[in-house]
Amino acid sequence: MTKTNAGRFFEDYAVGDVITHAVPRTMSGGERALYHALYPARGALYSSDEFARNCGLPASPLDDLITFHTVFGKTVPDVSLNAIANLGYAEGRWLAPVYPGDTLTSVSEVIGIKQNSNGKSGVVWVRTTGRNQHGADVLSYVRWVMVRKRSEGDAPATVVPTLAPAIAPSDLQVPDGLHFNDYDATLAGEPHRLRDYAVGEVIDHVDGVTVEESEHMLATRLWQNTSKVHFDATNRADGKRLIYGGHVISLARALSFNGLANAQMIVALNAGAHANPCFAGDTVRAWSEVLELAETAVAGVGAIRLRLVATKGAAGVLRTDDGKYAPDVLLDLDYWALMPL
Amino acid sequence: MTKTNAGRFFEDYAVGDVITHAVPRTMSGGERALYHALYPARGALYSSDEFARNCGLPASPLDDLITFHTVFGKTVPDVSLNAIANLGYAEGRWLAPVYPGDTLTSVSEVIGIKQNSNGKSGVVWVRTTGRNQHGADVLSYVRWVMVRKRSEGDAPATVVPTLAPAIAPSDLQVPDGLHFNDYDATLAGEPHRLRDYAVGEVIDHVDGVTVEESEHMLATRLWQNTSKVHFDATNRADGKRLIYGGHVISLARALSFNGLANAQMIVALNAGAHANPCFAGDTVRAWSEVLELAETAVAGVGAIRLRLVATKGAAGVLRTDDGKYAPDVLLDLDYWALMPL
Amino acid sequence: MTKTNAGRFFEDYAVGDVITHAVPRTMSGGERALYHALYPARGALYSSDEFARNCGLPASPLDDLITFHTVFGKTVPDVSLNAIANLGYAEGRWLAPVYPGDTLTSVSEVIGIKQNSNGKSGVVWVRTTGRNQHGADVLSYVRWVMVRKRSEGDAPATVVPTLAPAIAPSDLQVPDGLHFNDYDATLAGEPHRLRDYAVGEVIDHVDGVTVEESEHMLATRLWQNTSKVHFDATNRADGKRLIYGGHVISLARALSFNGLANAQMIVALNAGAHANPCFAGDTVRAWSEVLELAETAVAGVGAIRLRLVATKGAAGVLRTDDGKYAPDVLLDLDYWALMPL
Repeated sequence: MTKTNAGRFFEDYAVGDVITHAVPRTMSGGERALYHALYPARGALYSSDEFARNCGLPASPLDDLITFHTVFGKTVPDVSLNAIANLGYAEGRWLAPVYPGDTLTSVSEVIGIKQNSNGKSGVVWVRTTGRNQHGADVLSYVRWVMVRKRSEGDAPATVVPTLAPAIAPSDLQVPDGLHFNDYDATLAGEPHRLRDYAVGEVIDHVDGVTVEESEHMLATRLWQNTSKVHFDATNRADGKRLIYGGHVISLARALSFNGLANAQMIVALNAGAHANPCFAGDTVRAWSEVLELAETAVAGVGAIRLRLVATKGAAGVLRTDDGKYAPDVLLDLDYWALMPL
Repeated sequence: MTKTNAGRFFEDYAVGDVITHAVPRTMSGGERALYHALYPARGALYSSDEFARNCGLPASPLDDLITFHTVFGKTVPDVSLNAIANLGYAEGRWLAPVYPGDTLTSVSEVIGIKQNSNGKSGVVWVRTTGRNQHGADVLSYVRWVMVRKRSEGDAPATVVPTLAPAIAPSDLQVPDGLHFNDYDATLAGEPHRLRDYAVGEVIDHVDGVTVEESEHMLATRLWQNTSKVHFDATNRADGKRLIYGGHVISLARALSFNGLANAQMIVALNAGAHANPCFAGDTVRAWSEVLELAETAVAGVGAIRLRLVATKGAAGVLRTDDGKYAPDVLLDLDYWALMPL
Repeated sequence: MTKTNAGRFFEDYAVGDVITHAVPRTMSGGERALYHALYPARGALYSSDEFARNCGLPASPLDDLITFHTVFGKTVPDVSLNAIANLGYAEGRWLAPVYPGDTLTSVSEVIGIKQNSNGKSGVVWVRTTGRNQHGADVLSYVRWVMVRKRSEGDAPATVVPTLAPAIAPSDLQVPDGLHFNDYDATLAGEPHRLRDYAVGEVIDHVDGVTVEESEHMLATRLWQNTSKVHFDATNRADGKRLIYGGHVISLARALSFNGLANAQMIVALNAGAHANPCFAGDTVRAWSEVLELAETAVAGVGAIRLRLVATKGAAGVLRTDDGKYAPDVLLDLDYWALMPL
């Protein structure tokens, strides 16, 4: 019997299975510093303890996407080692901030399976929950992936979960204590508050970042994501490594500071598609479209729902005439962030 | 109205304007570790808490250039986004060490403006001050840049500030408590004290470092410097990104350990010129010339004034016969450091 | 007299010399985070404070190889600046874990010298000891290198130290408090305990990592290793930089998680050879062979002796018919790790 992990195949998943993922991780200021080195992140709440305290938090939390990548990375050996494609995200909710010193673990429950008609693969839906050392949930999201079958054969009963198209504003979790009563827009970097944005508004975030092989590998390793395609140049004739989709998410989110500096905390991930692969040498740009504006349970704390698009092309272009993603589009993400009203 | 920052143009500056720069930053051991990964830095005072305590400090401070880059980076969106050239530095003084846990902010005052005769651009002088969370100044320096005009037109009244050619030794700020009474030269790495150096002495720091695209981008992002030219390969036909001048400063200063291991703390920046651009693939070397030797207000703590030159060529070569910087020279920096007498 | 360090030549070593190496180093969570970014490290004990506490330690220590690289890096300016080759390691013992906040120093004693018959170089053996700020030894190992002579001439008396072929299991230092009584194999990542391994068993660790110039330079600088060959592209016609052998050790050890997730702590380095040079662009893979299984002084804590091979080729291939290392083999390392019985 081999001692190495060959990953799970479609047959290895059954609805109701609960998988505890390995390798808990204690975070420190080192992860935060690396995040700032890897992405042009400038959100004041994630940069300054003083700014965060002024917003009612005990200190500056780690970027919400550090939490996402860390929780996600742990699931790779159990969920996506034999994945053909990462198909989507839904019902993502950030439930508590993560601070240096916190230790994160991940657990996934299989909530859906559907064999493909070719009998060679199938789709698996999992709900993944990240927890801290106190047992508190910090993040929960659904992801579905297409996974190879070990061998062709009978299909298990199909279970397709019903997923909300978006998190309702009333279900957004505002972190304990957070307020924007003494919000310093000068230090945050921009004057625009929720009331200054309009549904349908498109923001070109202007700047571009050209990606290098070593950067995306540093990032992907940092999240202990073991997917071979990101690290091994012998997988492709051109020697390029497929860039982890989450790297593109973080790049685009960081670039979106320019125009959305006050979209401070990500609290929900409604949907997401990695429209086209990203490779070293690509220059990644980003644009956002305002999808919805809402209040939250906390006075003064608004919520902005955004489509965040990472692209190698022009701002505002998402799909071609046939309804498919334009070839330059890398990412189409639908999320909620908290913003001063 | 666009929500993104188009940067200021020459017309947007008036003498006396005070600009509070955005995005305060809390430092940690992560920034220090990254500094050690990005530059061959070996100064014992910045590497070891024990060594720093033995010199009267409460712990090892962050490298003085981490403070410089962090304070400088914050000014970029307000001062140099539309800059044509970074023209010079003067009157730089480090006023207090920065430790992990400190939060830095930057403020700049416009102290001079002078429209160019072509009517298309002008020079702006700003005095930038970095402060910690206690409101104490940690760094102050003057920088002047050439900035584009939004449109041609009348010139404002010219104000050219009077700047000291160098900080006087009596104005050098020795950090509270610092002493070299129990200085351990073995652990510091070299036996040479201030008295062992002579004005006019030239030191070839021997080693070279070949720069990669990903390294300078990691560094420049870490300081939250948003200047497009450092990150976007589509700005130039050859796909190279112009390397942040501060990256070259840190490389040269770190290389200068070999021969100047006891030039422990940078306390003043008298002048500086980025003589030629640096690109990935360049192998950066450094040499120093001793300009002045002085005592400070603290017994046993001397000050050495150094010309630090980063070059792709030979040590000792600074200018060609016509008085211009030799094409291999990247940086010509004039600074004061503290050294055991 | 030049002020820069030209390094020691063979004539500069005498048996009994004790060299205190410069630049003590205080570690933080930043070094740990960088280690996770640079290597695909997933050992639970080095990733999670909670996991480490569950094993009886006060917190998660820094990776044992961080200790090794840091202690080793300090010796380079005194031992291997003029080295022609790094010939071997022996009698390596990790004596106490290193935690964020600890400060490391290195001392080496010359224990052997032997001039080569060509009169132009010789072999020097040193025993290097790393210590923390409390004066406790954290690591001790013997290394021997071939060093240039300054000039040809008479040979000093030859002293060749007697070195153990391997550390005896009874000499392995189990850290104070360490136990595996409540070991969580699910969180560790694999179910295999010491009893599940057999002497002679070969494990292919499957995954490959393609190395980039910037990554190995970031790593090597982080350990303050100043060897020119790793940083200066002008040293070779092809512009490649020779990769620090320790970078390959860390890559291979991290890859070996897949099949050896429970080989938690490295406690001894019995022998090691850098079989062939590694360069950017190489895709590094790893395989292990189980050499010995043993108990330790602590009930429940077993020890596994492993041959760890880094290679650009197939698993299991070590030498060609002539007894030499196969050209694809980069590293052949013999070490002891602690594992639940």
